[in-house]
Amino acid sequence: MKQINGGICAAKGFKSSGIHCGIRKNKTKRDLALIYSENPCNAAAVYTTNLVKGAPLIVNKKHLANGKAQAVICNSGNANTCNANGIEVAEKTADYLAEALNINPDDVIVSSTGVIGLPLNIEPIKNGIPQLIQELGDNSKQAAEGIMTTDTKIKEIAIEFDINGKKCRIGGIAKGSGMIHPNMATMLVFITTDCNISSDMLQKALSSDIKETFNMISVDGDTSTNDMVTVLANGEAGNKQINADDENFKTFMKALNTVNVYLCRKIVADGEGATKLLECKVEGADTLENAKKCAKSVVCSALTKAAMFGSDANWGRVLCAIGYSGAQVDIKKIDVKFKSAKGEILVCKNGAGVDFSEEKAKEILLEDEIEILVNLNSGEYRSTAWGCDLTYDYVRINGDYRT
Amino acid sequence: MKQINGGICAAKGFKSSGIHCGIRKNKTKRDLALIYSENPCNAAAVYTTNLVKGAPLIVNKKHLANGKAQAVICNSGNANTCNANGIEVAEKTADYLAEALNINPDDVIVSSTGVIGLPLNIEPIKNGIPQLIQELGDNSKQAAEGIMTTDTKIKEIAIEFDINGKKCRIGGIAKGSGMIHPNMATMLVFITTDCNISSDMLQKALSSDIKETFNMISVDGDTSTNDMVTVLANGEAGNKQINADDENFKTFMKALNTVNVYLCRKIVADGEGATKLLECKVEGADTLENAKKCAKSVVCSALTKAAMFGSDANWGRVLCAIGYSGAQVDIKKIDVKFKSAKGEILVCKNGAGVDFSEEKAKEILLEDEIEILVNLNSGEYRSTAWGCDLTYDYVRINGDYRT
Repeated sequence: MKQINGGICAAKGFKSSGIHCGIRKNKTKRDLALIYSENPCNAAAVYTTNLVKGAPLIVNKKHLANGKAQAVICNSGNANTCNANGIEVAEKTADYLAEALNINPDDVIVSSTGVIGLPLNIEPIKNGIPQLIQELGDNSKQAAEGIMTTDTKIKEIAIEFDINGKKCRIGGIAKGSGMIHPNMATMLVFITTDCNISSDMLQKALSSDIKETFNMISVDGDTSTNDMVTVLANGEAGNKQINADDENFKTFMKALNTVNVYLCRKIVADGEGATKLLECKVEGADTLENAKKCAKSVVCSALTKAAMFGSDANWGRVLCAIGYSGAQVDIKKIDVKFKSAKGEILVCKNGAGVDFSEEKAKEILLEDEIEILVNLNSGEYRSTAWGCDLTYDYVRINGDYRT
Repeated sequence: MKQINGGICAAKGFKSSGIHCGIRKNKTKRDLALIYSENPCNAAAVYTTNLVKGAPLIVNKKHLANGKAQAVICNSGNANTCNANGIEVAEKTADYLAEALNINPDDVIVSSTGVIGLPLNIEPIKNGIPQLIQELGDNSKQAAEGIMTTDTKIKEIAIEFDINGKKCRIGGIAKGSGMIHPNMATMLVFITTDCNISSDMLQKALSSDIKETFNMISVDGDTSTNDMVTVLANGEAGNKQINADDENFKTFMKALNTVNVYLCRKIVADGEGATKLLECKVEGADTLENAKKCAKSVVCSALTKAAMFGSDANWGRVLCAIGYSGAQVDIKKIDVKFKSAKGEILVCKNGAGVDFSEEKAKEILLEDEIEILVNLNSGEYRSTAWGCDLTYDYVRINGDYRT
């Protein structure tokens, strides 16, 4: 299993593009992206659990009922959510694209991200589709740009793996930044693979993996209305189809997990205003559920996030977040360490502070990737959650997002 | 029922004081407070649900088992939490005070607020007790100052009410600011009354009222380890004792609620870095539970809080927060208005945006007390939650709290 170039176009038979069609005022920002497979794909998706759902998600659930898809179109700048005519616009988008590509509208996945509650004008999308198709090619980066909102960096990855001697590829792009606290699915993540795998097993792989990846990240505790992770598999690698929970499925799961963990880390590291990636690793839990609750509570704590921004080894806030996490834990057994490229330091043993060098702690916490290591010393379960620090820029960005 | 002066010393027979004893480095900051009743009181308290509990809370549960108390001592600057010898220090504090006041140590309520995980030195407290007792008097403001941490304003109130023609008084002080997301109890709130009421009814009144008051506020989603609300009732008003759920109890409940709502609003308005008080009023819910979930989710949403800081009428974030609140609601029926001293404006009708004047909305949202009015149009239940905006100063304060 090795990392390769090409993002979502690394898998055979996938092309993509990203253009500025006019939804966003700034003409230098791409606002429309397309992912297209020459052949029909098995497809799987997971969606936000927010009761307020973007219109595209409602359309996609219908389109993906048969587990098939061939194209993904995504605009940024407008979430197409909480609009009276949202579903109509999402359906028309699929219709226009399907007509131009000469495919079935049901095989189009539609996606939108941006401001909630403003009607989405179909015209720029309709007018942009010809150029979008014309520019289809090995353009993963352009597509990754086209789905960005307040993201500052594109997020893409591809890896190569073997199924019974056949080389397969899987790649993904993501947009994250704010309103990131996924539950069941997260943000926009588009994954392509040429591995031959049935729709059922693809859905099983995705639904299982997100519990340990996208559902374990948080930027700000706000679960978005438009979260979606989708995978397209066109089978062009030529391996015998994976349609059972066997060794090959495990290999595919491992490849998918590698892509997802990579994108998770990129999403939180580029969280709105973030200067640091936080990784909370909890071990020694008596159940997986308790491990997850503790890890997620720590990366969600506004006070812990602000302390990390200030490189302040305020471990009491870590213990506080574990205490209110809902996990049943024995506080008196908890050890806490901070770790980074500069080393690691024990700050709390058996639930109480230990003498430690504030200087050394500061040096460790000044790095931009911080691990918060928690040992509950009560069992064998472990979990990791990812988050980012809380900064002035998060406030600046969100104090005036619409204008 | 009318507001009067005097805070916690308005009720007959209560005295208080607040001094600098040396726990905090800054000598101009009071760090030790005392509340004392000349006669023994019936007492009630509620505590944090955080599994990590400050040592004073563990001691208080023991001391209040008999429903009696006569004095409250509280230090700021150190939470006496997650320390190996915390309980010993809390017990010694009660012992020294009891000896000096010539009362039973079990009748002392101990309280601490400040940094978690640093051992609390008993010496400054021990040495400060004589001065603390010497300065006992009509000094509610000094006590209110003594319990402050990052609070910028003292929080106190007193009101007068009638029980069967007898004038009673009830007053309270509070400290809030950060780590405010109470569950079961909140922050430090000390209430005194000269109303004659049994311990059982006092506890019943308090436990019932906090569900609609302190459990409905949030500054940052972090449930503190040291939250506590306590009421002392010395009976000096001379009314016949309230010991059943009758009209007099209802009058007392109303007085208690008035004090608590006032302190709730003061706590969030003075939330760390806050520039605005947010009050989310949800009506038309099918159950009380759903009303509360929606109201609390809105005031907890980092994105809504940041939008309010920027006076941005981004109502989509309000809907988003309702959507992930866990309440079962019909999104298509929701109306949202923003309101302040400058008027009110409808921004969302039936779950979709309506045309509104951005100028008027800005004018409304530039005020420092904002109401977010949500009508779920699905029933008769209503609930109010209180919060504050998320600002640069919240980040500044918490990025470097310990140093």
